[in-house]
Amino acid sequence: MPIVVQKYGGTSVDGVERLRVVADRVVEARDAGNDVIVVVSAMGQTTDDLARMAKDIAPEPDPREMDMLLTAGERIAMALLGIAINARGCRAASYTGSQAGIITDTVHGQAKIIEIRPRRILEALEAGNVVIIAGFQGLSSAYEITTLGRGGSDLTAVAMASAVGAEVCEIYTDVGGVMTADPRIVPEARLIERIGYDDMLELAAAGAKVLQSRSVELARRSGLRLHVRSSFDDEAPGTWVQEVDDDMEDVLISGVALETDEAKVTFDGVPDTPGVAAALFKAVASVGVSVDMIVQNVSHDGATDLSFTAPIADVASLESTIGGIAQQVQARNWSVDDGVAKVSLVGAGMKSQPGVAADMFDALATEGINIEMISTSPIRISCVVRKADAERALRVVHARFGLDGAAVG
Amino acid sequence: MPIVVQKYGGTSVDGVERLRVVADRVVEARDAGNDVIVVVSAMGQTTDDLARMAKDIAPEPDPREMDMLLTAGERIAMALLGIAINARGCRAASYTGSQAGIITDTVHGQAKIIEIRPRRILEALEAGNVVIIAGFQGLSSAYEITTLGRGGSDLTAVAMASAVGAEVCEIYTDVGGVMTADPRIVPEARLIERIGYDDMLELAAAGAKVLQSRSVELARRSGLRLHVRSSFDDEAPGTWVQEVDDDMEDVLISGVALETDEAKVTFDGVPDTPGVAAALFKAVASVGVSVDMIVQNVSHDGATDLSFTAPIADVASLESTIGGIAQQVQARNWSVDDGVAKVSLVGAGMKSQPGVAADMFDALATEGINIEMISTSPIRISCVVRKADAERALRVVHARFGLDGAAVG
Repeated sequence: MPIVVQKYGGTSVDGVERLRVVADRVVEARDAGNDVIVVVSAMGQTTDDLARMAKDIAPEPDPREMDMLLTAGERIAMALLGIAINARGCRAASYTGSQAGIITDTVHGQAKIIEIRPRRILEALEAGNVVIIAGFQGLSSAYEITTLGRGGSDLTAVAMASAVGAEVCEIYTDVGGVMTADPRIVPEARLIERIGYDDMLELAAAGAKVLQSRSVELARRSGLRLHVRSSFDDEAPGTWVQEVDDDMEDVLISGVALETDEAKVTFDGVPDTPGVAAALFKAVASVGVSVDMIVQNVSHDGATDLSFTAPIADVASLESTIGGIAQQVQARNWSVDDGVAKVSLVGAGMKSQPGVAADMFDALATEGINIEMISTSPIRISCVVRKADAERALRVVHARFGLDGAAVG
Repeated sequence: MPIVVQKYGGTSVDGVERLRVVADRVVEARDAGNDVIVVVSAMGQTTDDLARMAKDIAPEPDPREMDMLLTAGERIAMALLGIAINARGCRAASYTGSQAGIITDTVHGQAKIIEIRPRRILEALEAGNVVIIAGFQGLSSAYEITTLGRGGSDLTAVAMASAVGAEVCEIYTDVGGVMTADPRIVPEARLIERIGYDDMLELAAAGAKVLQSRSVELARRSGLRLHVRSSFDDEAPGTWVQEVDDDMEDVLISGVALETDEAKVTFDGVPDTPGVAAALFKAVASVGVSVDMIVQNVSHDGATDLSFTAPIADVASLESTIGGIAQQVQARNWSVDDGVAKVSLVGAGMKSQPGVAADMFDALATEGINIEMISTSPIRISCVVRKADAERALRVVHARFGLDGAAVG
């Protein structure tokens, strides 16, 4: 039988009524002649609630214990779903990440999957069960419980789907698919019916929340097709994330994305000598900050300005050491600015189209929006602007590239 | 280093403040030069809340999934306690029943421990950790998550304490020890400072809620001393449950207990022929009812009356089949009465004292309380009375045997 993997996020399993809807859909997929593996997140705000309790007890909770704590959330959701499916006369059994053979490295809170050993899952399918797997969690090579970080359930689903050779990995969400922009900000945003792995990766990395970028990366590597679908509307087409084929090359732009959770850190007047940037980012990395954009301006009088963006949460932990780093690289000055946002335009088609960047800058200019930093990849252009301008910037770029209106795909 | 096992019930870990108190006490025991193993229950009403959600989804939840669900409760409590202890600069690590090597049979919801493999726990102690273990749960011989039934955390603590050769197993409760009677009913009830395993077993089986009877049985078998203590008052002496020594023989009566969760089932006019009782109780056992007291009256005209008591919850499941059983044993009539309660008097000393039973019956008679069933063991006398009379019966028996007043022990 073909294997279908279905992943349900926290909103889709938030409460008894929604669990019933999910159970119905799972049974339907099973009755249609598939082996079904379901990956679930914790219900609603459970993970946040547990984390808040931990922080009430200790501002910096022990990471091992934190993982033990948070994994309780998926356990509750999957067991309740198991009860709902069994109550429909369809045999189902739930498995923790550890039981499902999801082996990770030993980095608590942000573990990487290093291997899937799906023997027990395959046996359970073979025995006629619907298999439910706790998302977001695994067992480390040191036999400790680990979690995979934000959006980790996507990763669980994609990794398991690849390991068992599933036909498709269905990602159920409350938004119904990948959109050309966040519809809460751009009401004209449209559903993207098909999108290549590269574009999806750039969109995810640029702030689109619908899919976790590590899971897209993994799907690309194993050639697994993802189907992002609505958990509330079975008729909706959803979005297929898959290998680009020829007619998709016509699509110039896939969508725009907004990232508002990053801050800009600038070092002014850094001596423009070899090795300075290396020293600076080595120091930044050593305090655990994951840097996103890096921009270095042209040099004047043997000194240059170096800016980078990084998650605001990371930067907060950086501030105490930042003076030391500035001193180390002999910077004249340094500043942290959390009033910024990053607007990104993504599309594999832009590789073959000159003038896309100029068009984007022009669109922002007509609205009087100042650009503070620019960074590009072959299929993405990102501009850092004031946070206050961000939503307006997203809308004007979305309109400029013809993303408002009829369906793409 | 001597190993101390501390077990905390749900009330003791209900909320951040109480977890802090527990963490302080654990660190204190560690600083006093002990290796410390902590066994925790789920916080407050967590287990009941989870069970209620499950019943909302399905009236008879799948037992395997139910165990997966309920074990989340201890996981949350132990991880939060781990965070609290680590925050005090004392290294602590929490372990699920499965990780702690608690191997059970495969009966979901009511599993029996068949073996403890404490290797990982001993290694963690050796490495300098306080070890926290989830109570109430284990891993079956078929590698499935199981739970040990009501009061299962006591059993976890006692079994682990025996397996690692602990000096003592401390059971922390909100009542501060074993009392001569439930102080909510008998305000004159006193703390029992020392009690033998046999008396404790009878008290627990007779309805005293403070210790689970299976765990007392296990402690007796391995000669492990239990110390039942207050989680709120370190100065309080608590109760030692241990091997009886000579001067304890002087204690005539340990205490009285009340059981109000049983119903009485009576079959009237059963033919008084060999094999009838066997047939009846075989039929009762086959529907999963655990029978407590059995009383058969003298025979008249070749027919007799047979009564037994059993948990009300079990009897509910029995009612549909009870007519069939009555027919099978050719009973004239049958009835179920849930308006009863069982008052028990427990004390190893009564073996050598004639007239204890007569005294108890007399005490009840002076209050005009009718006795419906009587059952005795060498160290216990139980009377079934009307539920409406139960608390009055408990008080009058408690007073008659001199249990009101100064401390025993």
